[in-house]
Amino acid sequence: MPNSRLTLAYDGTSFHGWQVQPGQRTVQGVIEEHLTRILQEKVRVHGAARTDAGAHALGQVANFRSEKLFPSPALKRALSHLFPGDIGLRDCEQVPEGFHARHSARARIYEYRILNSSQPSPFQRHYSYFCPFALDRAAIKEAASYLVGTHDFTSFSKAGSVGVPQRHLERLDLREQDKNITLEFEANSFLYGMIRLMVGALLEVGRGKRKPQELREILAAKRRGLATSMVPAGGLYLVKVRY
Amino acid sequence: MPNSRLTLAYDGTSFHGWQVQPGQRTVQGVIEEHLTRILQEKVRVHGAARTDAGAHALGQVANFRSEKLFPSPALKRALSHLFPGDIGLRDCEQVPEGFHARHSARARIYEYRILNSSQPSPFQRHYSYFCPFALDRAAIKEAASYLVGTHDFTSFSKAGSVGVPQRHLERLDLREQDKNITLEFEANSFLYGMIRLMVGALLEVGRGKRKPQELREILAAKRRGLATSMVPAGGLYLVKVRY
Repeated sequence: MPNSRLTLAYDGTSFHGWQVQPGQRTVQGVIEEHLTRILQEKVRVHGAARTDAGAHALGQVANFRSEKLFPSPALKRALSHLFPGDIGLRDCEQVPEGFHARHSARARIYEYRILNSSQPSPFQRHYSYFCPFALDRAAIKEAASYLVGTHDFTSFSKAGSVGVPQRHLERLDLREQDKNITLEFEANSFLYGMIRLMVGALLEVGRGKRKPQELREILAAKRRGLATSMVPAGGLYLVKVRY
Repeated sequence: MPNSRLTLAYDGTSFHGWQVQPGQRTVQGVIEEHLTRILQEKVRVHGAARTDAGAHALGQVANFRSEKLFPSPALKRALSHLFPGDIGLRDCEQVPEGFHARHSARARIYEYRILNSSQPSPFQRHYSYFCPFALDRAAIKEAASYLVGTHDFTSFSKAGSVGVPQRHLERLDLREQDKNITLEFEANSFLYGMIRLMVGALLEVGRGKRKPQELREILAAKRRGLATSMVPAGGLYLVKVRY
């Protein structure tokens, strides 16, 4: 059956996350609804990652199978016009039948944006985490280095995480521009809450509330409840999925 | 009576503009409500400019008079915490009794942001006007040069503009960064709808639908209805007020 791949950007502010939930506006729900209407058959869309309520995407990937239509410039235009303004269709292409947005993904890249300024910005309130405190960048980078690699990340996961707790964190980089700090994460996949708990702990290190080495100890303990500071979803972006 | 000056940034998306209107959420209304509550007396706030519904501010200026309190770091902190997330208090200071945010202003600086790209951005939909068409920058700059100076701007005003129609447009600059084009306007003051009508006409010139010289003719006609293309308020920012 023809298999189509969508690349999507979305502003997650008004969504209850990616995954379909009864009675809630979700990205998957809105996309399935429009595809079902266009193709006049029940369409199931598979996303590469289940982004949290309020989290954003610059390059989410999804696929769906349908006999009716395969992607064409006309389908792309039709979907682009139907989608609400907070979902942008970046690409739409035909892919081999075996392609599955989640199972075929080799790696996910996320970033977390922090506004490190003395005053919050009304324009950034849903898009960046406001942190008015002085942050020790060198300490954050040292702590980040302990997280990179293949580890059991149970300590940095929320209850409800499924599957084995081992993940390979390929890199964790800190970038800066003016008052904006961005932490970039690349891993094969992430546990539920993993990035937001890691960022919370890294900011505690940056503020001097924890020593960098503590993150190594928390990780080694493989136990939930040691990393408790979880930053809000509004700063989180799914940047890209690698296949 | 002590006179205080506030400098404000706001995301205008969820406001029906600056000016108090019964039953509507407006920036002036929200600020007066909070000041009245803190000072326990009816406070009237004067803004330098009445921004439209959906238009934003990076540096709106307002003043209010009250016997009770004059601005202090404590008042600034209190207000910052009380204001909703879409209003940011940038500064709060005592000013001479004669200062009036609107009457004392010598000039207003606005900018209008355009996303000139093949696809819209879900993150820019309330903050930049999406224009997917090729734009001739040289033609826009030529047309802009005809608008600069002291003119009767009736042709670029909406019904409801008050006062004399003469305005001094000090400059109209075009800046570019990646796919973002910003038009910056500085004038002693602006007529109602003036910037959004000028931008609409300049974009028609950029798209080749009008010749640059036509803007000179429209201006000289001093008649409403010749410039009819009005861009949406979401791209408009009150940047700064000069005193």
